[in-house]
Amino acid sequence: MSLYLIIDILGTIAFAISGVLTAMHKRLDLFGIFIIAFVTAVGGGTLRDLLLDSPITWMRNMTYIYVIFSAAIFAIIFRNKLNYLRGSLFLFDTIGIALYTLVGIEKGIQMDLHPIICISLGTMSACFGGVIRDILCTEIPIIFRKEIYATACILGGIFYFLLSLTTLDFNWIVIISGSVVITVRLLAVRFQLSLPSVYKKEEPNL
Amino acid sequence: MSLYLIIDILGTIAFAISGVLTAMHKRLDLFGIFIIAFVTAVGGGTLRDLLLDSPITWMRNMTYIYVIFSAAIFAIIFRNKLNYLRGSLFLFDTIGIALYTLVGIEKGIQMDLHPIICISLGTMSACFGGVIRDILCTEIPIIFRKEIYATACILGGIFYFLLSLTTLDFNWIVIISGSVVITVRLLAVRFQLSLPSVYKKEEPNL
Amino acid sequence: MSLYLIIDILGTIAFAISGVLTAMHKRLDLFGIFIIAFVTAVGGGTLRDLLLDSPITWMRNMTYIYVIFSAAIFAIIFRNKLNYLRGSLFLFDTIGIALYTLVGIEKGIQMDLHPIICISLGTMSACFGGVIRDILCTEIPIIFRKEIYATACILGGIFYFLLSLTTLDFNWIVIISGSVVITVRLLAVRFQLSLPSVYKKEEPNL
Repeated sequence: MSLYLIIDILGTIAFAISGVLTAMHKRLDLFGIFIIAFVTAVGGGTLRDLLLDSPITWMRNMTYIYVIFSAAIFAIIFRNKLNYLRGSLFLFDTIGIALYTLVGIEKGIQMDLHPIICISLGTMSACFGGVIRDILCTEIPIIFRKEIYATACILGGIFYFLLSLTTLDFNWIVIISGSVVITVRLLAVRFQLSLPSVYKKEEPNL
Repeated sequence: MSLYLIIDILGTIAFAISGVLTAMHKRLDLFGIFIIAFVTAVGGGTLRDLLLDSPITWMRNMTYIYVIFSAAIFAIIFRNKLNYLRGSLFLFDTIGIALYTLVGIEKGIQMDLHPIICISLGTMSACFGGVIRDILCTEIPIIFRKEIYATACILGGIFYFLLSLTTLDFNWIVIISGSVVITVRLLAVRFQLSLPSVYKKEEPNL
Repeated sequence: MSLYLIIDILGTIAFAISGVLTAMHKRLDLFGIFIIAFVTAVGGGTLRDLLLDSPITWMRNMTYIYVIFSAAIFAIIFRNKLNYLRGSLFLFDTIGIALYTLVGIEKGIQMDLHPIICISLGTMSACFGGVIRDILCTEIPIIFRKEIYATACILGGIFYFLLSLTTLDFNWIVIISGSVVITVRLLAVRFQLSLPSVYKKEEPNL
């Protein structure tokens, strides 16, 4: 089993569990919980593939369904114990978004798209599952409000294209830009960084 | 006019009317009411066809537009009398989801997809119009919260594939698995069944 | 630079700025503001292209990204001064929806679709960016609730097809039906027209 596949599965697990937790917070029923787990895990990639007119991965490869289903069952049963896994889940999620960002970028490059579009596709793959999760739970998407999350993906993507201008070996480009995503995300959470606010203190609502 | 077409039209009418009622509950204007009626009726099939990269049915066959428009006008005018039709509408809706489930499954089979994916496509065809309706009205989708609805479609789909393993005639497979959807839904509503709760009484929100 | 392109860019600017204002009203962060500006500007056309299985315009033409990004930066910085531009923005928005309506209609005609579907595609191109904007901000879409907005697009579309039955020159058909969209919208806002209400005064909620 390749490293790629292992990371993909760990990321899928982390995403599915975050879906379960959001769904249970909203007191959805079993069906609702599974659907939210599912869209959180595959929503970003599905949107990317629809825009690229590519085949949808999870429709042809059953691994995703099995992994998401098992992760959801696990998360429902052990929901009160998940706190102990918090660190691991955060790590899976973080290396997951690094991977999805790179996969999205490479799909864009294969289609001969502009680097900015490729980075957008990468960020979308990594982040839009969470956007769809929040919308289905009628919450304003959390990545629009706080946390350096998408920004980590965008910075990783910029590194990817900057390094491509050098003579660096392809594997190193992937490793370094993936590490940028992970490092930015870890630092942001560790030091509670957020994007510079565009609002002045006490500025009234527009 | 084939039985298939009649069921499809009755289902479309029931879906459109449920859209009108949700939209009017939210006090939308005429345009909003029509749009909600429309997405409730065709949203699930459209999502399925986008995922399958198939042509969108309602864009090539005007019947749907005319039926939805007429049903919406009817529902707006007679909204205070619709209670008398409650039973019929519920029946139309129920045989409608049975049909859409089977149509979705068969589209999946034609594309050589795994049975689990086919059942998902069937359930999506039947249920996601209502999901989009609720999201456009900023409600958490009702099928994620209560009622055996999607579950009836999933059980019907499982029967479809189990029966396919037998030597049973195709027409009987369709009739029996469609009846499973309808029966499960009728029993669930009659006896107010819902999915087993995953929440303990008084369990605080996650 | 063709007149077509100028109108397209002015419309994109107006749409992006309306996205920024909605996002800032919800106190989204920088990333959220850009995403909302972007989907407001390109969401309607993207949905149309997905339904038509056409390539997505903004993925192949970087102009949109640059224009939206610049407009968003501008709107964030000068948000307290935008009131002075209110008239211009309203005008850009209005000629923008006229243009998008016509583009959507012509895409539909090229695919040999029924006039009603073409008008729907035109209206969708013009209006659904705003619908996605509102949904991502968990508001019921404003065009479902008030204002003659979609209705102006629909009326312009009807004129387009009625005039096509005459011997009128194509350029005149475009100019007249575009003017219908603009005029209806201007009159509706000037005289605060809205669709005839389907609700009786004091009618209780359904």
